[in-house]
Amino acid sequence: MSRVLRIAAAQMGPTQKADSRAATLARMIALLEEAASRGATLAVFPELAFTTFFPRWLIDGAALDAHFERGMPNPEVQPLFDRAAALGIGFHVGYAELTPEGRRFNTAITVEADGRILGRYRKVHLPGSVEPREGARFQQLEKRYFDYGDAGFPAFRAGPAWHGAITGMMICNDRRWPESWRMLGLQGVELVLVGYNSAAYDPNGGTTEDAGLRTFHSRLVAQANAYMNATWAVAVAKAGEEDGSGLIGGSCIVDPNGLVVAEATTLGDEVVVADCDLDLCRQGKDKMFNFAAHRRPEHYGAITERAGVVEPVPATLI
Amino acid sequence: MSRVLRIAAAQMGPTQKADSRAATLARMIALLEEAASRGATLAVFPELAFTTFFPRWLIDGAALDAHFERGMPNPEVQPLFDRAAALGIGFHVGYAELTPEGRRFNTAITVEADGRILGRYRKVHLPGSVEPREGARFQQLEKRYFDYGDAGFPAFRAGPAWHGAITGMMICNDRRWPESWRMLGLQGVELVLVGYNSAAYDPNGGTTEDAGLRTFHSRLVAQANAYMNATWAVAVAKAGEEDGSGLIGGSCIVDPNGLVVAEATTLGDEVVVADCDLDLCRQGKDKMFNFAAHRRPEHYGAITERAGVVEPVPATLI
Repeated sequence: MSRVLRIAAAQMGPTQKADSRAATLARMIALLEEAASRGATLAVFPELAFTTFFPRWLIDGAALDAHFERGMPNPEVQPLFDRAAALGIGFHVGYAELTPEGRRFNTAITVEADGRILGRYRKVHLPGSVEPREGARFQQLEKRYFDYGDAGFPAFRAGPAWHGAITGMMICNDRRWPESWRMLGLQGVELVLVGYNSAAYDPNGGTTEDAGLRTFHSRLVAQANAYMNATWAVAVAKAGEEDGSGLIGGSCIVDPNGLVVAEATTLGDEVVVADCDLDLCRQGKDKMFNFAAHRRPEHYGAITERAGVVEPVPATLI
Repeated sequence: MSRVLRIAAAQMGPTQKADSRAATLARMIALLEEAASRGATLAVFPELAFTTFFPRWLIDGAALDAHFERGMPNPEVQPLFDRAAALGIGFHVGYAELTPEGRRFNTAITVEADGRILGRYRKVHLPGSVEPREGARFQQLEKRYFDYGDAGFPAFRAGPAWHGAITGMMICNDRRWPESWRMLGLQGVELVLVGYNSAAYDPNGGTTEDAGLRTFHSRLVAQANAYMNATWAVAVAKAGEEDGSGLIGGSCIVDPNGLVVAEATTLGDEVVVADCDLDLCRQGKDKMFNFAAHRRPEHYGAITERAGVVEPVPATLI
């Protein structure tokens, strides 16, 4: 039985603060319709897809809350769910989650082609800072606005419409951390979905990175980690000039060899489609990356024992 | 103070079973001399540099032992050490180690420009199998001939001639495992040295990989893991047609952005040189990959708890 899944990366151009929710949702539905018309059964939207990337602003109260979803779905986004169900296409989308208990997460869900929510992921690797950076034109305040994801990196086994694909999610900065990928790889992941909003300059205040280098980094980590975990990966940007701040594009679909099989060419709304044969993961999973045969966790202790660096003392002797 | 280290990747062409030790050592000394003449203070040789890649053969007894070094240095390889000391250049080299207790390791050492052995590494990720693969023209018997490295992934702080570079080593297959890099990254590594003998076909018996794809994989993992750990990486091949079996080339020097700054263009003996500014590691280590600020080891448990895959059960509920 063939296990080919046609997937659409639904890259979004910028969403300005002034844009209405309805206008943004209309763009997303148009992308969904194009994906379905091209035969895809999964459309992957970016991180925080319903709003501007608000962590670049220092805000609070109602101005902050306006960016959060109190349930998923909710009346404001229900038309996206309804249109997907009518078209028989599933989707992945990132959003800011405000729980009934008042906790806030940078979250993504994947909805199967039959409308069932396959799984939810809450971002673990929050970048940026709690306190605003003095004098910076744009902030990166994810550590201020969100709690750290509290559920690790779960993988989910999809239904027959997606050939039982073992599916994992990560969000933006997570993709730069090999631990995110490995946690999914250790669950046999075949398909990693990741949305992002990545600045076209260095959001940490460095001066050595430009849009070209940052787009290269984004693609590089998707390629190498897909290869090292023998999985498909779909990385999808919100791109372009958003509220005066640049975001890279570079949305791409990567095969289990780490090869880019489809990629976006613009910084705007753009659908990129590829046929993804899940069985292409087998070569890597069964041979080079047969984890049970070849991993040596007894030598990986520091990875879970501590967060930070401990440098060697000088004159280490053997 | 500038922390620029001029490094030479000393790629070696094939070494046939019939080649004498003296002939191989003469080639290595020629490479060392070229590296020194171009101003390098470190020359990086490949894995198992003194012999053919013997794990492709099922052998035992004296035929096997002939490939092992009983000490390092030893009289047979002393001329390499002597010439390096005379030239004021250090080197990294891989070899098969037979200890006084009779243990066997796939080992590498790094020797500083003053002749001091900075450190030793014993390969952790042994590929291949213990038992020969029936009907295969070439074997991959590292699991038969070597013990697993027993000392993890130590990093070493070099002396002033190398600007105190925090230096790590890995060997061949190790470079495909992000855990190897992360163990070094957690020690603040600035320079990763890795030699390899990588087949130009799939040594695991698969049929979907050719030399081009395998060279791409080799470079990809060096680039991405250098970037994700904000380190320089020097990856050096033994290349070409060796005992009738093809080995990829693709030796390269990679900067902490994951960019290839120098690479080999042949499958033979070839020296590639680059000036490596160790302070280029700081941007990544202090910002994007500030591990203490951004890693979340409480969510990495499975990485050290188990070796193999545990797939999710169907119909996982959120």
